[in-house]
Amino acid sequence: MPVQAIAWSPSGAVRIVDQRALPEDFATRDLESVAAVADAIRHLQVRGAPLIGIAAAMGLVAGLRDDRGLARGAFLAKLEGHAAVLAATRPTAVNLRWALDRMLAAARETPGEGGALWERLQVEATAIWEEDRAMCRKIGEHGLALLPDGAKVLTHCNAGALATGGIGTALAPIYLAHEAGRQVQVFAGESRPVLQGARLTAWELTHAGIPCTVIADAAAGALMRAAQVDVVLVGADHIARNGDFANKIGTYGLAVLAFHHSVPFYCCAPSSTIDLGLADGDAIPIEQRPAEEVKTLAGRPVAPAEAGALNPAFDVTPARYVTGYVTDRGVVKPPFA
Amino acid sequence: MPVQAIAWSPSGAVRIVDQRALPEDFATRDLESVAAVADAIRHLQVRGAPLIGIAAAMGLVAGLRDDRGLARGAFLAKLEGHAAVLAATRPTAVNLRWALDRMLAAARETPGEGGALWERLQVEATAIWEEDRAMCRKIGEHGLALLPDGAKVLTHCNAGALATGGIGTALAPIYLAHEAGRQVQVFAGESRPVLQGARLTAWELTHAGIPCTVIADAAAGALMRAAQVDVVLVGADHIARNGDFANKIGTYGLAVLAFHHSVPFYCCAPSSTIDLGLADGDAIPIEQRPAEEVKTLAGRPVAPAEAGALNPAFDVTPARYVTGYVTDRGVVKPPFA
Repeated sequence: MPVQAIAWSPSGAVRIVDQRALPEDFATRDLESVAAVADAIRHLQVRGAPLIGIAAAMGLVAGLRDDRGLARGAFLAKLEGHAAVLAATRPTAVNLRWALDRMLAAARETPGEGGALWERLQVEATAIWEEDRAMCRKIGEHGLALLPDGAKVLTHCNAGALATGGIGTALAPIYLAHEAGRQVQVFAGESRPVLQGARLTAWELTHAGIPCTVIADAAAGALMRAAQVDVVLVGADHIARNGDFANKIGTYGLAVLAFHHSVPFYCCAPSSTIDLGLADGDAIPIEQRPAEEVKTLAGRPVAPAEAGALNPAFDVTPARYVTGYVTDRGVVKPPFA
Repeated sequence: MPVQAIAWSPSGAVRIVDQRALPEDFATRDLESVAAVADAIRHLQVRGAPLIGIAAAMGLVAGLRDDRGLARGAFLAKLEGHAAVLAATRPTAVNLRWALDRMLAAARETPGEGGALWERLQVEATAIWEEDRAMCRKIGEHGLALLPDGAKVLTHCNAGALATGGIGTALAPIYLAHEAGRQVQVFAGESRPVLQGARLTAWELTHAGIPCTVIADAAAGALMRAAQVDVVLVGADHIARNGDFANKIGTYGLAVLAFHHSVPFYCCAPSSTIDLGLADGDAIPIEQRPAEEVKTLAGRPVAPAEAGALNPAFDVTPARYVTGYVTDRGVVKPPFA
């Protein structure tokens, strides 16, 4: 069974898997307040664009449990304050802002006092989560045909259950193939510098009973040359109208290597990731993360203080390298007019 | 000034830079005995194929300092025992065996008692070291034309002063360009899992005053796409007659990416690395190193115990991706008949 990265606790708190503790410890934490949820997002205990949005929406509900007796105006004021705190945790996260806006709109359009508004928020947060679960499953169903029995899949970073409310995006077809009794061998690039492939993808797959082999990112080329990869499945953070997409650094290199070795290469993402307002990938801003992520490992320096480091979080893969886009609406091709 | 990775100590011991301590500490150690040299090789305090051979040869000299009074037979017996100990430290290292065989042959062909034989060994070890220094410099001179002022170079792993008795192989042209007053920007792939790029290449270049920027191995593709790489220079562990060559895992992927982006890609190595008895790269055995190197970092698990890991130490780059081979004899092209 795939891990469930988020849930309501019996007391109505937000129960999460603490992703910082993985793979050493599988620990769940009950976040009782908005401050606790904000902290968990800020410190990457909860990560993955869809999951952050869900956690924030559920956090508003958990954090307002004791405010159900408030009058409408006071309740809305408190809600807006909480939403602002959560929005500030990851200022560039599109899903986070989208989920918070949706929660605010739901409350505002609901008549009545605090109690009625809270009930509506509870329904809305659960809906955001459930829609994400359904979306993951649909991506999995549409991608299932790509994974016949015995398929050898290469993936990168973590686009799995730990990044969503359901069974992930790039990993969704893998979970459904496993559920259907097919043998699937997954290779996970470790995804330096933050190692989401080694730490999270390998953990969630083996936790679900799916064999997973970690490789150094630099080993992907040799693996493809040895015909050990039948298909590459990756996620996406942002897809342009022409199909260019941004994803974890290293995705572009994998796409070129797959192209060169004639290995099919699929981008798996909710159709909401397609940004029709964006003509192509050149305009996607690339977040530069701290050099220290590259220069240290587990707190220990692995490069001299005098050396520089480049740490782009993402790269952009042009559409020409992409065999298809596995979305909740099917396997589609650009342009996404 | 490039670091000098090996030297005689004033007392005649083998002085090395402890490469395990880098980049945190720059520590030299004086190895007084054959056992100490063997230990340093075994524990990777000394690494790099040429440097291991030099260290072993010098270790025989250091370890026999107190045996100069022995008669010929006893001295030779002791020498052979020491050579066997050193040969066993890295059973597949070609240079190590070559250097030890050369030392044994030198002693055997020298007439006289222990004292005379030791003098000859001293001369022979120094010659092995000096020849390597000269070879590095020649590679540098032949590669210098590849690095005009302002050149942006990508390298992988460590093929530098820390791997040789001199200024390295792939890094030799960089040192000479710097010496000639040219600005050179070096990008070093960190070279997971053992991180020789981040730990050693970045250290030795910045130590010599040459700017070096570390990147995650997976960032190389995006860097080339952004036209930030003018040339790729890598080393080689084994070159076949047709030009296929084995080098650190990840070299092949860089070669494909360079080819795809029309970036010149050079393999830099002593001409002695070319194995005329080897028709092509398919026959080069690939050492599989322990999975734990991939699954741990600084002693901390970065992947779940249940996950597998592939850890090929090398990959093979077919000659068709290689722009040229920078050797001590010039920039050459296969076949090396």
